[in-house]
Amino acid sequence: MRRAVCPGSFDPMTNGHLDIIGRAAALFDDVYVAVLVNESKRSLFEPDERIAILEQGTQAMGNVKVEAFVGLLVDFCAERSIDTIVKGLRAGGDFDYEVQMAQMNRTLSGVETVFVPTAPQWSFVSSSLVKEIARFGGDVESLVPSYVLDRLARRLSGPS
Amino acid sequence: MRRAVCPGSFDPMTNGHLDIIGRAAALFDDVYVAVLVNESKRSLFEPDERIAILEQGTQAMGNVKVEAFVGLLVDFCAERSIDTIVKGLRAGGDFDYEVQMAQMNRTLSGVETVFVPTAPQWSFVSSSLVKEIARFGGDVESLVPSYVLDRLARRLSGPS
Amino acid sequence: MRRAVCPGSFDPMTNGHLDIIGRAAALFDDVYVAVLVNESKRSLFEPDERIAILEQGTQAMGNVKVEAFVGLLVDFCAERSIDTIVKGLRAGGDFDYEVQMAQMNRTLSGVETVFVPTAPQWSFVSSSLVKEIARFGGDVESLVPSYVLDRLARRLSGPS
Amino acid sequence: MRRAVCPGSFDPMTNGHLDIIGRAAALFDDVYVAVLVNESKRSLFEPDERIAILEQGTQAMGNVKVEAFVGLLVDFCAERSIDTIVKGLRAGGDFDYEVQMAQMNRTLSGVETVFVPTAPQWSFVSSSLVKEIARFGGDVESLVPSYVLDRLARRLSGPS
Amino acid sequence: MRRAVCPGSFDPMTNGHLDIIGRAAALFDDVYVAVLVNESKRSLFEPDERIAILEQGTQAMGNVKVEAFVGLLVDFCAERSIDTIVKGLRAGGDFDYEVQMAQMNRTLSGVETVFVPTAPQWSFVSSSLVKEIARFGGDVESLVPSYVLDRLARRLSGPS
Amino acid sequence: MRRAVCPGSFDPMTNGHLDIIGRAAALFDDVYVAVLVNESKRSLFEPDERIAILEQGTQAMGNVKVEAFVGLLVDFCAERSIDTIVKGLRAGGDFDYEVQMAQMNRTLSGVETVFVPTAPQWSFVSSSLVKEIARFGGDVESLVPSYVLDRLARRLSGPS
Repeated sequence: MRRAVCPGSFDPMTNGHLDIIGRAAALFDDVYVAVLVNESKRSLFEPDERIAILEQGTQAMGNVKVEAFVGLLVDFCAERSIDTIVKGLRAGGDFDYEVQMAQMNRTLSGVETVFVPTAPQWSFVSSSLVKEIARFGGDVESLVPSYVLDRLARRLSGPS
Repeated sequence: MRRAVCPGSFDPMTNGHLDIIGRAAALFDDVYVAVLVNESKRSLFEPDERIAILEQGTQAMGNVKVEAFVGLLVDFCAERSIDTIVKGLRAGGDFDYEVQMAQMNRTLSGVETVFVPTAPQWSFVSSSLVKEIARFGGDVESLVPSYVLDRLARRLSGPS
Repeated sequence: MRRAVCPGSFDPMTNGHLDIIGRAAALFDDVYVAVLVNESKRSLFEPDERIAILEQGTQAMGNVKVEAFVGLLVDFCAERSIDTIVKGLRAGGDFDYEVQMAQMNRTLSGVETVFVPTAPQWSFVSSSLVKEIARFGGDVESLVPSYVLDRLARRLSGPS
Repeated sequence: MRRAVCPGSFDPMTNGHLDIIGRAAALFDDVYVAVLVNESKRSLFEPDERIAILEQGTQAMGNVKVEAFVGLLVDFCAERSIDTIVKGLRAGGDFDYEVQMAQMNRTLSGVETVFVPTAPQWSFVSSSLVKEIARFGGDVESLVPSYVLDRLARRLSGPS
Repeated sequence: MRRAVCPGSFDPMTNGHLDIIGRAAALFDDVYVAVLVNESKRSLFEPDERIAILEQGTQAMGNVKVEAFVGLLVDFCAERSIDTIVKGLRAGGDFDYEVQMAQMNRTLSGVETVFVPTAPQWSFVSSSLVKEIARFGGDVESLVPSYVLDRLARRLSGPS
Repeated sequence: MRRAVCPGSFDPMTNGHLDIIGRAAALFDDVYVAVLVNESKRSLFEPDERIAILEQGTQAMGNVKVEAFVGLLVDFCAERSIDTIVKGLRAGGDFDYEVQMAQMNRTLSGVETVFVPTAPQWSFVSSSLVKEIARFGGDVESLVPSYVLDRLARRLSGPS
């Protein structure tokens, strides 16, 4: 039984995230989506809402479970017998940092990291770009599922 | 008639910026310099002063117009029938992020982005380095025009 | 009147090449496609056939002309009053080399190079990958136009 | 049942290769090591010897099988119901090319590629460096297993 | 007499820092370790404690001196007749920024920068990763000397 | 007494090479320029001519010595008590490969490698670009010293 985790802030989940989680679900027996709760960093969506969105997005995948996490990812893994971290890789940029984290996590705990290249059509999509565009009324319909669109509209029109 | 925009914070304009704007002015019929006004990010110069500097720098180029912008660059482009974004590329670093933005802008609105490599002698010049050096009394005479030097001196000696 | 050139080996033209040539044709008044003839490097298609393919692919674009070239690209430009080189950029890899060439060409002759990011769906397509796949009977239908498929089949089944 | 393949030239296998194969063997039920036979490229070791070395190196891993392959990796995968390609990633360099290949293989056949970062201590080891050092009498004892040392010595002293 | 400086925040010093300082001490007659004091950036350790740690780490190297610095590194160099800056380079990421800084420093003052690649086993270690792991109770014993471990424990358990 | 080596093919020496050798000569007591003689690789200039050019270029530097070398650079270093390799780094491209070589050389022999960033104005100059341009009659006057120009003209007009 092989267990993996897809960690991230998912603020909010994009089509790119869904693509990577779906690939992880095909590669592993069990997949956890670990939603990083970082109180010193401001987020648009509360952890509960980020989790609700992810649960909606992954409900058709039978082997995916969404949970919040605080602290070290390697501790999250140890408590759930997860031995692999799955990360999506967008072209370029953050690759070197990701490898650094992967080496560190492996040294700390033996947890392995595998990288899956993001599908070309999502390679330019990130949560922060989605939020920036939506904030100024731009159209992000092709970048997130419809139920995220609704929540983005509500969140951005409400009191901040 | 081909119209392009050179977007940026220009806080303040450097010799590197001038070089890229000049190249854009040679390639396109009309060039807008769009000065990003981001109220949540602290800048050294107010938008008006950044615009004044750019107007001084580009006054010899007959087809360049400087304007402030708030919001999405693709909206700025749509309102002015601009179909091309011109970005200078310094060696390495931010290339991957820039391509991501370019793909996003193209998906959102059809606006194209073209990249022009920065001239070697300016490839290491950025506004933030200029400010950091000037702040501690270093000499930035070779990195910005003389009228920027004066304004830097005044701004940094005054109350912050 | 602004004239640009899209240089390359085009052995053979792919959907990615067509995408970049089409963008150049939208940005400039006149676009030359310059087919590099390098006798010391083995190619699958003769220059004439590579040109024929490109002409078929660009016939709907009214401002594109295909020509062979030998020697220095800057000389090709000088003879035709071309002042801009347009290059497609695939994620990562060859960017640094391309900037080096761009600086060199600018120093030698004043010809400017602009880079256009390849559309995400073609960002992984190259002539050499297409040939390698086709050589072993793989399906490249989604990577090149149909008239290239036919020529690939004929070329690869014939005497080498 | 999840099956993966570790492709390569393995001319010869290094400690870095062994590290990656071992990680793949821990992540998947069955692992094939696919030794690329490319007749147009000169190799130091014949395919049979490269396979023999790999079999010696992986004999303690119960779920690893070594085979030669010619042609397209996606065909090798289809014939053996392999759905994942595992690649080791050394710092930097070839990452962009690898992502390009991964996207291509996925488009051609649906086979997924996952990347595993090479352990830091092997991140600078490659077959070609090993051969170059050994050729001039340098000491590669820390880079390959002892049985590869012997074969290198024999191969490099014999008629070339 | 050749003098070099190893600049950084050292918040706190890691085994990777020690490795680079040791190499600089072997290459140059005199080596300064310059501890950047940046009052607008929050640090875990006060400058005095960061200096104390560095002095403990370098006491066996006879030609190393630790000092705080505020302002421009090139001024620090000018005041001490230092003509070379030594930087450790971890795989990838910050290389382009570092080269930009190096060009800038050279233009400003003639001070040269040389880069020394970090030893593979420390290539993934950074002060911020060490702090993040320690903050959540992770084990950083292999990443920093024992006397840093103690201080980390005290600092992180105390009032923040 | 600190000794360094600047290795390379120098086929032919460019202004960029001269810049790096000059910097090495300022940093170290003794500097060797090691001209790689690789009989399986075709060069434009014979080793003797490449050495003659380098000697002409470095004659004003009192502490530089030019020699041919065959085999492993670490052996060249060991025989001459050289403990540091100096490499110029052009923006981007070959950095990862260079770090790999540096780690390897350090593991093999303890010889350290330091990287010096190429001056911006030479960052796009390489021997192969110079040769390619000169071959087609392009002007490389700003890229190599005058005595290299003469030799290039003679070499390229003669029988190849």
